[in-house]
Amino acid sequence: MTDPLVIFTPSGKRGRFPVGTPVLTAARQLGVDLDSVCGGRGICSKCQVTPAFGEFPKHGVTVAPHALSDWNAVEARYDEKRGLKPGRRLGCQAAIQSDVVIDVPPESQVHRQVVRKAATDRVIEMDPATRRYFVEVAEPDIHDPSGDLQRLKDALRDNWEIESFEVPLPVLAGLQSALRKGNWQVTATLLTPAAGAPRLIDVAPGFVEAPLLGLAIDLGSTTIAGHLCDLSTGAVLASSGIMNPQIRFGEDLMSRVSYAMMNPGGAAEMTGAVREALNTLAAETARESRADPADIVEAVIVCNPVMHHLMLGLDPTELGQAPFALATSESLSLAADELGLNCLHPQAGAYVLPCIAGHVGADAAAVALSESPEQQDKLTLIIDVGTNAEIMLGNRNRVLACSSPTGPAFEGAQISSGQRAAPGAIERVEIAPLTKEPRFRVIGCDLWSDDPGFSAATAVTGVTGICGSGIIEAVAEMRIAGLLDASGLIGSAEQTGTSRCAPDGRTHAYLIHDGSEDGGPRITVTQADIRAIQLAKSALYAGARLLMDEMGVDRVERIVLAGAFGAHISPKHAMVLGMIPDAPLNAVTSAGNAAGTGARIALLNHAARGRIEQIVRRITKVETAVEPRFQEHFVNANAIPHAVDPFPELAQVVDLPRVGFNTGASGAGAGGRRRRRRN
Amino acid sequence: MTDPLVIFTPSGKRGRFPVGTPVLTAARQLGVDLDSVCGGRGICSKCQVTPAFGEFPKHGVTVAPHALSDWNAVEARYDEKRGLKPGRRLGCQAAIQSDVVIDVPPESQVHRQVVRKAATDRVIEMDPATRRYFVEVAEPDIHDPSGDLQRLKDALRDNWEIESFEVPLPVLAGLQSALRKGNWQVTATLLTPAAGAPRLIDVAPGFVEAPLLGLAIDLGSTTIAGHLCDLSTGAVLASSGIMNPQIRFGEDLMSRVSYAMMNPGGAAEMTGAVREALNTLAAETARESRADPADIVEAVIVCNPVMHHLMLGLDPTELGQAPFALATSESLSLAADELGLNCLHPQAGAYVLPCIAGHVGADAAAVALSESPEQQDKLTLIIDVGTNAEIMLGNRNRVLACSSPTGPAFEGAQISSGQRAAPGAIERVEIAPLTKEPRFRVIGCDLWSDDPGFSAATAVTGVTGICGSGIIEAVAEMRIAGLLDASGLIGSAEQTGTSRCAPDGRTHAYLIHDGSEDGGPRITVTQADIRAIQLAKSALYAGARLLMDEMGVDRVERIVLAGAFGAHISPKHAMVLGMIPDAPLNAVTSAGNAAGTGARIALLNHAARGRIEQIVRRITKVETAVEPRFQEHFVNANAIPHAVDPFPELAQVVDLPRVGFNTGASGAGAGGRRRRRRN
Repeated sequence: MTDPLVIFTPSGKRGRFPVGTPVLTAARQLGVDLDSVCGGRGICSKCQVTPAFGEFPKHGVTVAPHALSDWNAVEARYDEKRGLKPGRRLGCQAAIQSDVVIDVPPESQVHRQVVRKAATDRVIEMDPATRRYFVEVAEPDIHDPSGDLQRLKDALRDNWEIESFEVPLPVLAGLQSALRKGNWQVTATLLTPAAGAPRLIDVAPGFVEAPLLGLAIDLGSTTIAGHLCDLSTGAVLASSGIMNPQIRFGEDLMSRVSYAMMNPGGAAEMTGAVREALNTLAAETARESRADPADIVEAVIVCNPVMHHLMLGLDPTELGQAPFALATSESLSLAADELGLNCLHPQAGAYVLPCIAGHVGADAAAVALSESPEQQDKLTLIIDVGTNAEIMLGNRNRVLACSSPTGPAFEGAQISSGQRAAPGAIERVEIAPLTKEPRFRVIGCDLWSDDPGFSAATAVTGVTGICGSGIIEAVAEMRIAGLLDASGLIGSAEQTGTSRCAPDGRTHAYLIHDGSEDGGPRITVTQADIRAIQLAKSALYAGARLLMDEMGVDRVERIVLAGAFGAHISPKHAMVLGMIPDAPLNAVTSAGNAAGTGARIALLNHAARGRIEQIVRRITKVETAVEPRFQEHFVNANAIPHAVDPFPELAQVVDLPRVGFNTGASGAGAGGRRRRRRN
Repeated sequence: MTDPLVIFTPSGKRGRFPVGTPVLTAARQLGVDLDSVCGGRGICSKCQVTPAFGEFPKHGVTVAPHALSDWNAVEARYDEKRGLKPGRRLGCQAAIQSDVVIDVPPESQVHRQVVRKAATDRVIEMDPATRRYFVEVAEPDIHDPSGDLQRLKDALRDNWEIESFEVPLPVLAGLQSALRKGNWQVTATLLTPAAGAPRLIDVAPGFVEAPLLGLAIDLGSTTIAGHLCDLSTGAVLASSGIMNPQIRFGEDLMSRVSYAMMNPGGAAEMTGAVREALNTLAAETARESRADPADIVEAVIVCNPVMHHLMLGLDPTELGQAPFALATSESLSLAADELGLNCLHPQAGAYVLPCIAGHVGADAAAVALSESPEQQDKLTLIIDVGTNAEIMLGNRNRVLACSSPTGPAFEGAQISSGQRAAPGAIERVEIAPLTKEPRFRVIGCDLWSDDPGFSAATAVTGVTGICGSGIIEAVAEMRIAGLLDASGLIGSAEQTGTSRCAPDGRTHAYLIHDGSEDGGPRITVTQADIRAIQLAKSALYAGARLLMDEMGVDRVERIVLAGAFGAHISPKHAMVLGMIPDAPLNAVTSAGNAAGTGARIALLNHAARGRIEQIVRRITKVETAVEPRFQEHFVNANAIPHAVDPFPELAQVVDLPRVGFNTGASGAGAGGRRRRRRN
């Protein structure tokens, strides 16, 4: 008689097995992705399956009602204690009796996929580096002496095919008592780092149900964001953000590097500050999700090169001067403890993504991991805007990356009425072309400023200033409304026909909102603001153009705006301003916090850590600081084209009256022009 | 024209190389063992060779006077600064011009052999786990950004074929400054542990000449001995011994285990004490040899299982009760820092030899490494006497091991006039058969007590007591002189004919020395002393017999006495006493401190670490505590045969009057007799 046929869905894997074979055994032999922590002992309930009965013409089988063994005592006990969903069986208990079709529900798959919250439709495949294994360990035998650890190793090899692993001394010190308390049944937790041997990080008596947690950290110059994730489901349990305490040593990265250079022990002081903040963040996210920080077994960290060095305790001085040499560019698989992350599990691991170059950090690597430029058919430009903008351009043939020093203007800094994105900040601006009257929206309120009820709705927050996305829209709208010329000069009330353009020193400023009657601020866009935005957007545009030159292209097919800022700016206004190369509006998408997503991918998917190493090695690094064409593009990008134009660079060739916006740049501008003539 | 022939001695390796090939290059291509730290840059002078000139009929070549290139500027500079021995050349500078014979002197060989100090003629082949590598690292290039670490890795791969290694964060933190201070030339130190990836433990600017040091530690229950070795020459720079501070928690191991069981935190307290002592020992040996303890990059530790657990911070409780389960029996490759060894190099490694069983520790493994029972043709019995005796029996076919609870009598404890081996202790005893008068020698003086000048020579130390080897000789001599019967009973003055046998309570004691007139002690051997020695020697003999039973033999071909004690006892007296099985006297040798030698082998020869793992796995462990035959042998071994007899067990079958030496043993004795009758 032929053995019964077993067909697993959704994988379609099939095979014949002797009557009495447990479903879990069949699944393992066929390589079906069916989870199990207890190794088939009916304890963990991870191997739940749903048998299907009746006719399956597609599979060519008929499944009889008793195709699986009867519900047994182990299943009954589990159902009573925890409840099994109707139709579910425990794969380790249900045995095959005749032909059967068995569905593995997503929650029983180890490599289940977790849909990302972001707008894009990509998913994260679960493949965590840290897993729990329940085992029964042989008791010691006086006639065959072997250590407790050796018998644990035997059990892990025999039950889980785990061949070798390292054991930190503190874990070894807890082994004897765990084995005896658990009556020789223990749950072992193993962490497999990106490099090096797996590590036994925990042994606990009996079967442990508490989830393993991981923390994905996006360590920015200004803010530090953390996402606490369940390492078996991929669920984000809590997200939290705190200010980077290094701000007190310098707002921007270069002032922190200077602080390190000027003050003996300054780098160590900053290292201490950021590590303390990481501990706070871990504790904060754990508190939010009512978890124990000691259950956090892994942290993944992405950050720019300067934060990378400061967080690792490496001197950042070299990053402040050419040739911008990193101490190390490879990823790091560390003990969290080495980074002073001492509120996590005592044996927690920390993975730091690789850096791409001295100006293009692990945060850019994380964006690459999230946005996968190396897998795109279309030539894709990815821009992550911050104090430095990281820019990548590529497709499956080639990927380029550079960093461009945009300065903090896009973050609302160095803008007269600028502020960080926070409730009360103007984030959207429209200016009526005829009346030149503005309307705006502030963060925390869905109404426009000319909607009824706006004042009441914003009574608490007030209108406090203008944030990065707001200033971009304001400048672009001013240009569209004719309040600015192509060189960026604000016209007078006479030239523009609106009294909102009022003298401000030797230039003019445009009034967006006057809250002074209610004790609030007067919010204007000054000529200096325009110049600051021109500097920032020229740098960004020049970086993108430099990569396009290097790639030998004049146009890109897709633009992805990454970062919190990228999620809020209007592509139309960014193009009017000349921040980004022109592209069809529907080809411009926002990837949200792509660096944070990349960190989360590396946290949840072990193989992704190897992948990003390879991607980073394949990326061609372009250094803007020493590239004459960057200066050339920078100067050329200063003007503000008055409409979305598919070839904005052509418009700029026309010699518009140009205002030298600072003395340092004028020389470069001359150099740029000289070179252009030569070509 | 054929390329010149190059012949290296003593290896005899030969090959043809183009004119102009440096000798070092030729040596490398032929696999000749020629050292180099600087990789051929003329800095390290490790590659010194001695070319030979003239006719070499044996090799079939004639070497012309200009077979090598002329002495060059690098060699001249080195000779001026340091001095080259006459006839020596630097292998990296001297280039081949015509057929040549080149001798590699022992000090230029990496794998040179170091003759052991011990009596045996075996040698330690140098193959240290930690080595220095001088490299020139590429400077950073802004157009091809890569981290300092990646460029160091490239240099180590290209120059030394070192493919991958781990880098601890503190070493990484020092890399930038080392590279720049050394003007991109650095000396990297790599440690290759027995398990796991090589580790970069140090990077220093320029070429470093300071030797790498290692500490071999023999951690005993009572004393801790350390040997500081030069890892490139193998030389022992200093040896030092200190008391084990755990003595205050209990003299013997079981009382320390009890202390751990009875006192919360007691184990941790003992761990702290022994770790502090290890630091003291390291500092002490370094001070003695005027070295910096921070140059000690490796420590190798051997010890018994209880010390093993206490030193590692593992609870020793399980070792105090059957089934005597070790927490781990495998070797451990740790950071020294994990053991609190914080006066060594901050990244120093620590290697702990594997344990054989719950009673047979890493010290026994070290003895096995030193004495290689698994390589012997002759059936060899190795006995390492301490508070527990470790006993091994085997040859190249099979090796058995057990531990026997001899108690501290052999160390002079529990003996009425007993003391540790120290100046003033009686270590040799002779009793004249006719007069029954004793003569003796004390430690620290070469004269016998009846030699003229003895009193003067021992005036400072005095005669203070009797040490382990002394009591063995005393008891054996008493038996030979007829002062004891076969059961161990001391005769009266009437029975023995000497007034030195005087009543002592209900039994008698024999007076060896009366120093009471000078305020010194009266040194006697009491009946209780005889009983204590009988207990100890019976345990030792029973262990050896048990292994012989297991092996199915009645005689052994060689006996090796290991340990400081083993070096001092007289084989003849040990056989008279029935401590060890009979064997021809010339087949009994002393191995000195074999455990310490084993530690030194593991320190100096990396491959030995793998070898001892394999040996330990192959050893058959025999547990005396639960073996009925052990009790049987123990009881049977109680008597003292009156002469060296090749078959002492036959003599014991004669039913001599037997004195029950304690109540607990009498039952076992009865059992032993019962079983003997049954056979």
